[in-house]
Amino acid sequence: MRLCYACSKEPAEIFIDYSKRWLCINCFLNYYERKVKRTIEAYRMIKPNEKIGVAVSGGKDSTTLLYVLKKLYPSLNLTAIHLNLGVKEYSDHCNEVLRSFIKKLNVPLIEFNLIKQLGFSIHNFEKTRHGRKICSICGTIKRYLLNKIAYENKLDKLATGHNLDDIVEVIFNCYVQGDIVQLARVNPVLPGNHPKLVARIKPLCMMTEMENLLYASYAELPFRSLSCPLSKGNRSLKNKKFINAIILKEMPTFKHMLFKSYVKRIAPYINPPLEKIFECEICGMPTSKNICAFCRLTKIIKPLPQ
Amino acid sequence: MRLCYACSKEPAEIFIDYSKRWLCINCFLNYYERKVKRTIEAYRMIKPNEKIGVAVSGGKDSTTLLYVLKKLYPSLNLTAIHLNLGVKEYSDHCNEVLRSFIKKLNVPLIEFNLIKQLGFSIHNFEKTRHGRKICSICGTIKRYLLNKIAYENKLDKLATGHNLDDIVEVIFNCYVQGDIVQLARVNPVLPGNHPKLVARIKPLCMMTEMENLLYASYAELPFRSLSCPLSKGNRSLKNKKFINAIILKEMPTFKHMLFKSYVKRIAPYINPPLEKIFECEICGMPTSKNICAFCRLTKIIKPLPQ
Repeated sequence: MRLCYACSKEPAEIFIDYSKRWLCINCFLNYYERKVKRTIEAYRMIKPNEKIGVAVSGGKDSTTLLYVLKKLYPSLNLTAIHLNLGVKEYSDHCNEVLRSFIKKLNVPLIEFNLIKQLGFSIHNFEKTRHGRKICSICGTIKRYLLNKIAYENKLDKLATGHNLDDIVEVIFNCYVQGDIVQLARVNPVLPGNHPKLVARIKPLCMMTEMENLLYASYAELPFRSLSCPLSKGNRSLKNKKFINAIILKEMPTFKHMLFKSYVKRIAPYINPPLEKIFECEICGMPTSKNICAFCRLTKIIKPLPQ
Repeated sequence: MRLCYACSKEPAEIFIDYSKRWLCINCFLNYYERKVKRTIEAYRMIKPNEKIGVAVSGGKDSTTLLYVLKKLYPSLNLTAIHLNLGVKEYSDHCNEVLRSFIKKLNVPLIEFNLIKQLGFSIHNFEKTRHGRKICSICGTIKRYLLNKIAYENKLDKLATGHNLDDIVEVIFNCYVQGDIVQLARVNPVLPGNHPKLVARIKPLCMMTEMENLLYASYAELPFRSLSCPLSKGNRSLKNKKFINAIILKEMPTFKHMLFKSYVKRIAPYINPPLEKIFECEICGMPTSKNICAFCRLTKIIKPLPQ
């Protein structure tokens, strides 16, 4: 029987591929929490007395984020924010899973329902010219609404559950596409460089998707069991699959190296062209154009078929 | 029978994977030469009346480079420079293949023999602490000597046969390792920013390794048939294999995109920490330290076993 590398007592169950160590369940949970804490401290993500909004989707990443933040910092002022995107079956399922969990955690929850509060859902974009890039549209809508809700509720920061795989996929894609503006936005901490832009933090940026899945499973956190029906075959999923194929075969340290190299050795020397920030002529929220992406998008949607 | 995409007359024999086109031999040779010419012009690599040194190893890339430069610009003032690195069997084989070819081309050849002129060869580094990174040491020695020879012979520029695969491997490695200084040096044109540093150009930077091999083969250029016995298992070859595995499977345009994105959209926004250039206390050539890498290396070698 293989024993845990850390405690040398319990049987090892989990293999951390990039450090090549076997851990038992308890030591894995400890390792995970310590690593998130170290990340938060290394990037100075949270200051005392700050009000932190946590974007929760019902998935393993954001559920783990909320749970671990509450566990690591019990007195932290946390508010969960959930967007119900109106995706058939999927969104209601996410919502149900989430509600009972958050109630138990005793964290206040702000829910925002696209259909009820704005009269449309992500499905409304399916038949527009953006239909093929629905995940990118959904991302824009989510970023806009999460920021607006955090701003209107006077939260100091917004924490999201982005994991290492998410971030490495973006860095990789930016390198291949040469997207220097997006590349400069990859950082684990994004300051809110406008009074209406809430600063963003990514406390799980050092944890792989697999580590989040293992943590959520072994800590017995409830998370959604359905995949979003609109996300099939999107670029980000393809790239991640491809990066994972690289790693398994050739470079177990690829994700960690690409991320650390970017953050520590490349990002400090990148000076992207500065974007001016205006206020949107329609909604007044920050944007680099006259009209923000959210208002441009919501102008073109067709009524939802009943 | 599949006909050539360009002439629609001859049978197609060569598949250009990233543009998904089949060409006949003649149209491939034309396409290759036109593309090299376009690269030279796009990056303004050569000005009228410049004296161009061409580093020739005896391999397919540099042999093709010299041949194509002579063909595209018959009146260009070219000088071939060849380093005999003293690698057993390999170096003499390269030298033989090269001599008769260059004689036919009617280009002056400067030969430099490490053993005869400096009393050591690349083998002398095998048993030093650099033995495991012998390709990197060999690169340093070659860069130093090629620059020195070009400088002493008052050449205006030094052209090398680096192909797209070479360059993409370096960019990829710099991204993974976070080597911002090396990354800034990847450009197809490197100005000689010191009176003793000869500017470098890479006219084949847009041509894949496979395209060079096909050109050299179909144009019936003689090139070495042996591989360097010291290069087995080196990082660059592993990375290239790995990148080719990516491309064949997932992204036929990967190399071209990574290169173009870097040169056009990322490099302009990178400001690496500036390195001061001194003159080496031993040899007087440019260096970022007190003593240049060449002199530091040649100080530690042990006598060659006879």
